[in-house]
Amino acid sequence: MTVLYGMIDSGNCYKPRLLMAKLGVPFTNVEVSSHTGQTRAPEFVAKNPNAMVPLLELDDGRRIAESNAILLYLSEGTRFLPEDRYQRAMAYQWLFFEQYSHEPYIAVRKALLTFPERAKDATPERLAQTLERGNKALGVMNRHLAGNAYFAGGALSVADIALYAYTHSAEQGGFQLDAYPAVAAWLKRVEADPGHVPIEWLP
Amino acid sequence: MTVLYGMIDSGNCYKPRLLMAKLGVPFTNVEVSSHTGQTRAPEFVAKNPNAMVPLLELDDGRRIAESNAILLYLSEGTRFLPEDRYQRAMAYQWLFFEQYSHEPYIAVRKALLTFPERAKDATPERLAQTLERGNKALGVMNRHLAGNAYFAGGALSVADIALYAYTHSAEQGGFQLDAYPAVAAWLKRVEADPGHVPIEWLP
Repeated sequence: MTVLYGMIDSGNCYKPRLLMAKLGVPFTNVEVSSHTGQTRAPEFVAKNPNAMVPLLELDDGRRIAESNAILLYLSEGTRFLPEDRYQRAMAYQWLFFEQYSHEPYIAVRKALLTFPERAKDATPERLAQTLERGNKALGVMNRHLAGNAYFAGGALSVADIALYAYTHSAEQGGFQLDAYPAVAAWLKRVEADPGHVPIEWLP
Repeated sequence: MTVLYGMIDSGNCYKPRLLMAKLGVPFTNVEVSSHTGQTRAPEFVAKNPNAMVPLLELDDGRRIAESNAILLYLSEGTRFLPEDRYQRAMAYQWLFFEQYSHEPYIAVRKALLTFPERAKDATPERLAQTLERGNKALGVMNRHLAGNAYFAGGALSVADIALYAYTHSAEQGGFQLDAYPAVAAWLKRVEADPGHVPIEWLP
């Protein structure tokens, strides 16, 4: 059976859990927590040399790292990846936006404020920088969503799943979603899509 | 004609230039420099709300942002994107690795050390952090390349193009490539691939 190595409180790990729940893909969840050093333990680094979760292990033992790469792999041929070449490129664009311009600020700020082991990194400069850049990312999303129901292909796709993962909990990182009404309305649309499960869901 | 908005000294912008050179795709290059604020000017933000280059504009005016999304769009159906589903997932994996675990340290450290407008951010802490994490990324690459000629599908792909863009100039960021012999050998293999052009090449 497919195995997902992940953390229950990680938005990056929530992404493949949410997509596999929607697709009805059976999988075993194995908790590997960075809080306790498990992602850096030799037995896990042997599986993923980059020492990060999520990590998907297929039936035949082959593995895929990087949350958004796992989403693209799992979504091929499903309603979650646009068929049109340009709209698929838009899904790619927003997936890279999420990892480069969104997660390093919105997810990281929540981690700085809520993970005890990250408290030492929560300097005033770091909190100010993550707040400014996270708000920039939310502004870019809001501008797109003011004229579009979803991020690519006119329907919910892997781009929405990836961006939902940390946007839905952005207030825990000190971001005010009231300032981004199109984002707030989109969060509700994602939650109303068939098969939605919350971050704490496990198979 | 296709237009690429980019910076001549940006590795992210070099990626689509290198791929389009190899593919023989004709394009017009328009220099939009972050050094002089052009990426943040209203007329460019109207084209890419995330205020970054590269940005690809197709014949019909539609646009694609994010360097690795542009690579995936352009490579579809070519030798630069693996046909096998799992090997394509490996290409995705390394593209996301590049943007999350490599570029923010290897590219950013070079920018901190060589771009005058970034000098104020080049604190001892930031230089130490980017050195440590950049070396971690080079170690992960070296481990993979010790047993594989390329990153995905057994041949040069978009993953190699993306990782080449900033690895080939990593020494300008203070990284010692001698310590990573498999990476150094791979750089030479990429440069020997047909149609290779250097970063300063323009159509």
